[in-house]
Amino acid sequence: MSEPRTEPRIQFDALTRFITLAMTRLGLPEADAATVGRLMAEAELQGSDGHGVIRLMPYARRIRAGGLNLRPDIKVVHERPGMALLDGDNGMGHLVMHRAAEIAVEKARHCGIAWVGSRLSNHAGPASLYARMPMAHNMIGLYFAVGNANHLPAWGGLDMLLSTNPIAVAVPAGEEPDVVLDMATTVAAYGKVKAKAQRGEMMPVGWMIDRLGQPLLDPKRAEEGFLMPIGGYKGYGLSLIVGLLAGTLNGAAMGKQVVDFNHDDTTTTNTGQAIMAIDISAFGDVDAFKARVDQLVRELKNSERMPGVERIWLPGEQSHEKRAANLRDGMLLPPVLLKQLDAFAQELGLPSLQQI
Amino acid sequence: MSEPRTEPRIQFDALTRFITLAMTRLGLPEADAATVGRLMAEAELQGSDGHGVIRLMPYARRIRAGGLNLRPDIKVVHERPGMALLDGDNGMGHLVMHRAAEIAVEKARHCGIAWVGSRLSNHAGPASLYARMPMAHNMIGLYFAVGNANHLPAWGGLDMLLSTNPIAVAVPAGEEPDVVLDMATTVAAYGKVKAKAQRGEMMPVGWMIDRLGQPLLDPKRAEEGFLMPIGGYKGYGLSLIVGLLAGTLNGAAMGKQVVDFNHDDTTTTNTGQAIMAIDISAFGDVDAFKARVDQLVRELKNSERMPGVERIWLPGEQSHEKRAANLRDGMLLPPVLLKQLDAFAQELGLPSLQQI
Repeated sequence: MSEPRTEPRIQFDALTRFITLAMTRLGLPEADAATVGRLMAEAELQGSDGHGVIRLMPYARRIRAGGLNLRPDIKVVHERPGMALLDGDNGMGHLVMHRAAEIAVEKARHCGIAWVGSRLSNHAGPASLYARMPMAHNMIGLYFAVGNANHLPAWGGLDMLLSTNPIAVAVPAGEEPDVVLDMATTVAAYGKVKAKAQRGEMMPVGWMIDRLGQPLLDPKRAEEGFLMPIGGYKGYGLSLIVGLLAGTLNGAAMGKQVVDFNHDDTTTTNTGQAIMAIDISAFGDVDAFKARVDQLVRELKNSERMPGVERIWLPGEQSHEKRAANLRDGMLLPPVLLKQLDAFAQELGLPSLQQI
Repeated sequence: MSEPRTEPRIQFDALTRFITLAMTRLGLPEADAATVGRLMAEAELQGSDGHGVIRLMPYARRIRAGGLNLRPDIKVVHERPGMALLDGDNGMGHLVMHRAAEIAVEKARHCGIAWVGSRLSNHAGPASLYARMPMAHNMIGLYFAVGNANHLPAWGGLDMLLSTNPIAVAVPAGEEPDVVLDMATTVAAYGKVKAKAQRGEMMPVGWMIDRLGQPLLDPKRAEEGFLMPIGGYKGYGLSLIVGLLAGTLNGAAMGKQVVDFNHDDTTTTNTGQAIMAIDISAFGDVDAFKARVDQLVRELKNSERMPGVERIWLPGEQSHEKRAANLRDGMLLPPVLLKQLDAFAQELGLPSLQQI
């Protein structure tokens, strides 16, 4: 029935070029557009499709509404040898966090570790994108962010004051794929709920509850309920702590101040994020460390399995495989998305993604 | 029926003195015994009863078996301006982490943040004890540790290669109680399973599964199954990451190397931990930060509640209240534990806890 080989596959370079051109047309300076293009294409490449090129249209909507600063003066407002606080001047989050990662790596070389927070930033794509950056310098990367819409109340509460506030940690391995955890502090990310609604499917018990605390299974009724935090009150605590570290500490939005960027294109989001780099060489020999990571990864992978379990996955391993396959074969985008991108390209006077 | 007022209540100072004397008799130098005594009593005071004075007998067993070094040379083996790696020389974990917290605070004053890891350390009590330490210096504290017994397999696996690896984060508030998260990365800590078994109660669905992946409800069969990680595969990832940061990075035990200290009193545990301090003043005005934390705490506390929910708790608030009540009224220890402590005191030639 299905003939996937006849569907167009998009190469990474083409996608990067396409997003870069679109961003330029939307008014970003060329160098900034190229940075955003590369990072958004990278997100798509690693399989973070909810944070990839699908975001182009919502970003454009906010840019056109004047809700994003196209010429931000991203600057360090507080600094010590091991930390910096960046004011993103309401620029694209990708630009702010790209700069943050560079500063964190530079400072960690000297201090052994470094932490860079942001305020007045914006949505920056998947958390793992930034947690991964220090790995190229033989460093461990950590990333925390305040999500851009509240879907979570306090444990036992009804007011949605918290977001899916994600955590990402990237630990370089030797011969094995790097260990990269990228997780929302809720059982399901909100994008997964939207996807279930689109497919007309019910959600499993545990994703959402309604205002009486009962399981909410119909994703079309999602607005009547809340996402469930992982481990119940523990996930509530974790989401709060991530918000305190990535938001409150930086003077960025938290709690009631968080702007729902799905429903508001103009209010400055004042998004807070934080990235941390740990220089492995400060703790000892880098190769010996990577060998220890490899050993641990192999113990886990080769462990005895439960009946019916075909393979044990390490965090980040599926993204790693997707990335390799997408680089080799090109990316398969959903037909609906391709159509939207074609219409968008026409609107901007650009060639379509498949011809670029 | 019950007349709690006639039960003996133990004062914090008395408990500190008792543990200190016991530790001295067991061979610790006086200053070290005093540090351990104060920290163990502090754990009991804040309601971390699974990590308080109940641990005195198991620690004594390990000390007598020669599994702990009574005269450790705790030293920095790697250092940069923002980090240090401590070799605990197989001393009591409390001593190693107390030193680690001091170094982290000192380094964070200069660098803005600091990270101190340990290897060849040992069990150090509740994670929050150390995460709380930087707060006295207007710093945020974070603490990660490799647990001292593996109860968790890889997601889908059967070999128990991971522990409850806890995370604690302490964020100082202004007028509100400080926000202190202290959580195992499993739904239930193993101590809670043991407590259920003692009381002859069944466990709720979600705490443990058996080797077929089915819910395990009888705590007496706990050895036939595994603890469940929070959020399923997410908690597995989180436990692994904590282990990589607190164990593997420091050259401490992880995976198969972890020694089950409940069943082995002599093998060096090579416990790994990590503590981090973030100097709030590096990010801006400390009072303004605390006011923002207060505001957020109040939004959460005062939010509308689900039917049947009497009060919304913040992480650490219950410990905060327990601590205040215990300081005021003294601590109520379980009669069984008091008896064990009396017998232990007699064995050591010490007065009983109630007469000290």
